[in-house]
Amino acid sequence: MIIGTIHGVGLGPGAADLMSVRADRLVRGARHVAYFRKAGRPGRARRLVDGMLRADLVEYAMEYPVTTEIAVTDPAYNDQLAAFYAECTRHLTAVAQTGEDVVVLCEGDPFFYGSFMHLHARLAGRVPVQVVPGITGMSGAWTASGRPITWGDDVLTIAAATLPEEELTRRIRDTDALVVMKIGRHLPKLRRAIAAAGRMEAAWLVEYAAMPEQRVVPLTQTGDVAPYFAIVLIHGQGRRP
Amino acid sequence: MIIGTIHGVGLGPGAADLMSVRADRLVRGARHVAYFRKAGRPGRARRLVDGMLRADLVEYAMEYPVTTEIAVTDPAYNDQLAAFYAECTRHLTAVAQTGEDVVVLCEGDPFFYGSFMHLHARLAGRVPVQVVPGITGMSGAWTASGRPITWGDDVLTIAAATLPEEELTRRIRDTDALVVMKIGRHLPKLRRAIAAAGRMEAAWLVEYAAMPEQRVVPLTQTGDVAPYFAIVLIHGQGRRP
Repeated sequence: MIIGTIHGVGLGPGAADLMSVRADRLVRGARHVAYFRKAGRPGRARRLVDGMLRADLVEYAMEYPVTTEIAVTDPAYNDQLAAFYAECTRHLTAVAQTGEDVVVLCEGDPFFYGSFMHLHARLAGRVPVQVVPGITGMSGAWTASGRPITWGDDVLTIAAATLPEEELTRRIRDTDALVVMKIGRHLPKLRRAIAAAGRMEAAWLVEYAAMPEQRVVPLTQTGDVAPYFAIVLIHGQGRRP
Repeated sequence: MIIGTIHGVGLGPGAADLMSVRADRLVRGARHVAYFRKAGRPGRARRLVDGMLRADLVEYAMEYPVTTEIAVTDPAYNDQLAAFYAECTRHLTAVAQTGEDVVVLCEGDPFFYGSFMHLHARLAGRVPVQVVPGITGMSGAWTASGRPITWGDDVLTIAAATLPEEELTRRIRDTDALVVMKIGRHLPKLRRAIAAAGRMEAAWLVEYAAMPEQRVVPLTQTGDVAPYFAIVLIHGQGRRP
């Protein structure tokens, strides 16, 4: 009895031709694909592979039971997501046990703040799991900005805008280059933290990097909410000949 | 008169099928490719595309005049590299002015601690330049380690082992997840800094990620020198359902 493999496949920042050759081959050859999405939405990962999939494809949409409706600090948030990931794990394991491989479509890089990690933690050791790294959304963002993110000995700090304002300020003051993820409605707080750190003039908001809607805006000229696919950057200014 | 475009193309961490579909297409179609290498060596970027190149290819090997023979703090280091990058820029500009495109092969991601950045700074505004992001060496490393690098609100600090020991210690103590690049002969210093920060048991050395020689070793079990393609990791342990 051969057990199938679950492939966590990084699709990159959002342009179909920025996925790796390995990812492209796995996606085009897959009989089974699975992907996360918000309930009622088509799902960004799934849309990215439109037109690449087999005619006899079997799809498994994993719809988050909750995204921002409950605070992440509420135990109910944790309970609902744990039950959800357990159910996804049960389903994928059952498919693998029929001998079929499954390609799990992952935006960006699967092991860098990705939902796939929660499946990986539950699947590893039970069924074969392979991970294909991808170009991160932040690489897409600094490429969109037209300037390198780090030079020489620059320290790069990557943080989530969900952190407390004081901690964001302290870390932004203490780094050469900066990437902030998970911005959404935390944008006003992040802007205050960057201003308090004295770095406002150096900060950029990059929305939908590598996608048709790509937009690079000085942080001084942004509104109060950023889309989910938004990253704030401060470029390093390190040593260079 | 049409001017050619200089493409800075990220090749990813070191496996040919981990370059993007866009990079693959540009490399296979290129009449002119350029790449950095240490004098007397074939060059890792060039070796990665062996077998992918056109028969009528024109190659331009850019050989560093100096790597570790002179300290980076010595003004001579800066002078020699500045002259070298100026010469590369002159050559690439001349090719573009004949109307030909050039693909510059870049390990990892061109805008993340890459030599191409020094050309980009000199070429931009003079000739058309396009950058194709790539999977970073660090993504290759944490994928090789078999575990995610960041969860939830984890802060990830990326630093070079060339920093002073006290600064490394301070930053390692103050981060959730860690990536250290540019290790080489700085490994003993980095190990002392990680031990002083109390994180020794959590640290891994990943050598040649995504390449046939790939090796993942607990930092406690390493020697005193790491190869150029080595990265030290500490995985984040953040919130997860």
